[in-house]
Amino acid sequence: MLKKIIRPSTELYLGSEILHPDLLLPFGRTLRVVLVVDETIRDLYGVDLAKRIGATLLSISSGEKGKTLKRAEELIDQLSRMGCGRDTLLIAMGGGVTTDLAAFAASIYLRGIPLILIPTTLLAIVDAAIGGKTGVDTLYGKNQIGTIYPPKAIFADLSLLKTLPEKERLNGLAEILKMGLIRDPLILEMDRNDPRLIERAIDGKIGVVEQDPTERSLRRILNFGHTIGHALEAVADYEIPHGEAVAIGSLAEAHLSMRLGYLPREEFERIEELYRPFSLRLPKNYSRKSLLSAMAHDKKNEKGKIRFVLIDRIGHPLPFDGAYCLPVDQTELEPTLEWMEK
Amino acid sequence: MLKKIIRPSTELYLGSEILHPDLLLPFGRTLRVVLVVDETIRDLYGVDLAKRIGATLLSISSGEKGKTLKRAEELIDQLSRMGCGRDTLLIAMGGGVTTDLAAFAASIYLRGIPLILIPTTLLAIVDAAIGGKTGVDTLYGKNQIGTIYPPKAIFADLSLLKTLPEKERLNGLAEILKMGLIRDPLILEMDRNDPRLIERAIDGKIGVVEQDPTERSLRRILNFGHTIGHALEAVADYEIPHGEAVAIGSLAEAHLSMRLGYLPREEFERIEELYRPFSLRLPKNYSRKSLLSAMAHDKKNEKGKIRFVLIDRIGHPLPFDGAYCLPVDQTELEPTLEWMEK
Repeated sequence: MLKKIIRPSTELYLGSEILHPDLLLPFGRTLRVVLVVDETIRDLYGVDLAKRIGATLLSISSGEKGKTLKRAEELIDQLSRMGCGRDTLLIAMGGGVTTDLAAFAASIYLRGIPLILIPTTLLAIVDAAIGGKTGVDTLYGKNQIGTIYPPKAIFADLSLLKTLPEKERLNGLAEILKMGLIRDPLILEMDRNDPRLIERAIDGKIGVVEQDPTERSLRRILNFGHTIGHALEAVADYEIPHGEAVAIGSLAEAHLSMRLGYLPREEFERIEELYRPFSLRLPKNYSRKSLLSAMAHDKKNEKGKIRFVLIDRIGHPLPFDGAYCLPVDQTELEPTLEWMEK
Repeated sequence: MLKKIIRPSTELYLGSEILHPDLLLPFGRTLRVVLVVDETIRDLYGVDLAKRIGATLLSISSGEKGKTLKRAEELIDQLSRMGCGRDTLLIAMGGGVTTDLAAFAASIYLRGIPLILIPTTLLAIVDAAIGGKTGVDTLYGKNQIGTIYPPKAIFADLSLLKTLPEKERLNGLAEILKMGLIRDPLILEMDRNDPRLIERAIDGKIGVVEQDPTERSLRRILNFGHTIGHALEAVADYEIPHGEAVAIGSLAEAHLSMRLGYLPREEFERIEELYRPFSLRLPKNYSRKSLLSAMAHDKKNEKGKIRFVLIDRIGHPLPFDGAYCLPVDQTELEPTLEWMEK
């Protein structure tokens, strides 16, 4: 098992079969422990783990559609009814929806209670659980409400991935490839089943997050593929997997990088090749207008302008004076939108 | 005008007639500015100030009963509909309800947007606006949901107090007296109309908050009078003024400090004397049972035990090994509850 510290305060444990009470319980020594899971994880691991660590088990609904403020409030009401104080340790176990939502609840309940994350999907292990972001969606877009609230610890137990459906694995792969595109090109050369791929993707994210935890500058590069990706999810009412949306988004934003003259054509074609194994399709209810109106709520926007992370070669995002993103007019965007619709 | 820095990052301006565009606007130079007020403040100052600084004016309902997550969500939805990005400066102007609620919304919208507070009541100037706490109430108690999110700046404009009803002034006085009881006994000797009283109370709070911004230790002393005070507010469904609840709570917790053998009787009698000018009455729907059940949700509780800040002389809270509060059994509490009901 590997132990890493994400500065300033998160301990990350990475390995197989690491959910021992001996490892988990020191974080909750004098505390009451509440384990929050969705229905699937409850049956697969939750009931058993709660018993082993003496935790109270709470279930929430899964699915990105349930990642709302209302659900977070329901979870908080449950904590209140149980009389949970600030000495309660909340362990959120599940995919990104569960960890984002439960971590958000933990961050605002009594102005913050101790938190541990146990991501159970590849996507959550390499992305959602790393970096301290919490969030819920609103009518206006993804993670429009949230906090930055680093957990005490993250337990990334790779043995949990055994039960992961193949579709879910592809979901995580899209974020891993994105890390290759913006920071660590070697990732793109590695065998897709090499377990070191996961560690490498996590290290990439930690490296970025530690330099800019509150996303004022460099951290924005992690948003590559997400300006279009998040908007696609909103357009599809979250019925498209995050990974698929990010894959389409990454490819489209690479196209935009090329169209704006930053990325050489041969680099773009290499990227196109990378995504060929994915069967990428725009959501049924897609329209150019709905995509543009969803992008109007992107969190990187300034002065009402949509801003994009762009790359000038594989592994290299453009710094743009430390902003790491560039406002792009709708007219400049048109060729990429047309290309997407083909 | 006095300018103070509340470390690490809040600038506090204290004085009269200080709401100049020249002072306010540097905080929103490249930003869109939204001014959030309640209906009363809108008519008194909001319309005019918004015009002078070129801000969009948003009104919310006032009253502690409206300090809910739902209201915060409504405010956030308005910001979304206006297309506000992270480059929006939110200025919250009003009493503690408005500043707590709007600051909470600012802290979670897009994971946090820039914030300025303009407290307009004595209570908000000496207490609610200082220290970075935001919060909304739930069914289970006061500020059960919130964040710690220091604003960029606080403008404490004493000329706004001219329009403050006398009842509101007493509301603030209860927090000022509390500061005297836990930290700065000279406050209790000063003339109640001496404007330096306000500065002294603010300085007291800043001194505590800077030592312990996230309330792990010393900051708990600010909660003196609030274990019972907050519970009284919940029992009264927020139809008792915060100041009156805190005055009753401070007196009762001084009584408890005496009953538990920490505070000498003559000190307690001096405190009783201090509060004589207030006409303190328990809320109509008060019952001992409802008070105890409200205190069960106090944020200082640990292991299900209610904890109290206690003093052993005027101006001196007991440190209790750095916890600055002590669990008190219900049986030990009974004599104080009986005394309160007399």
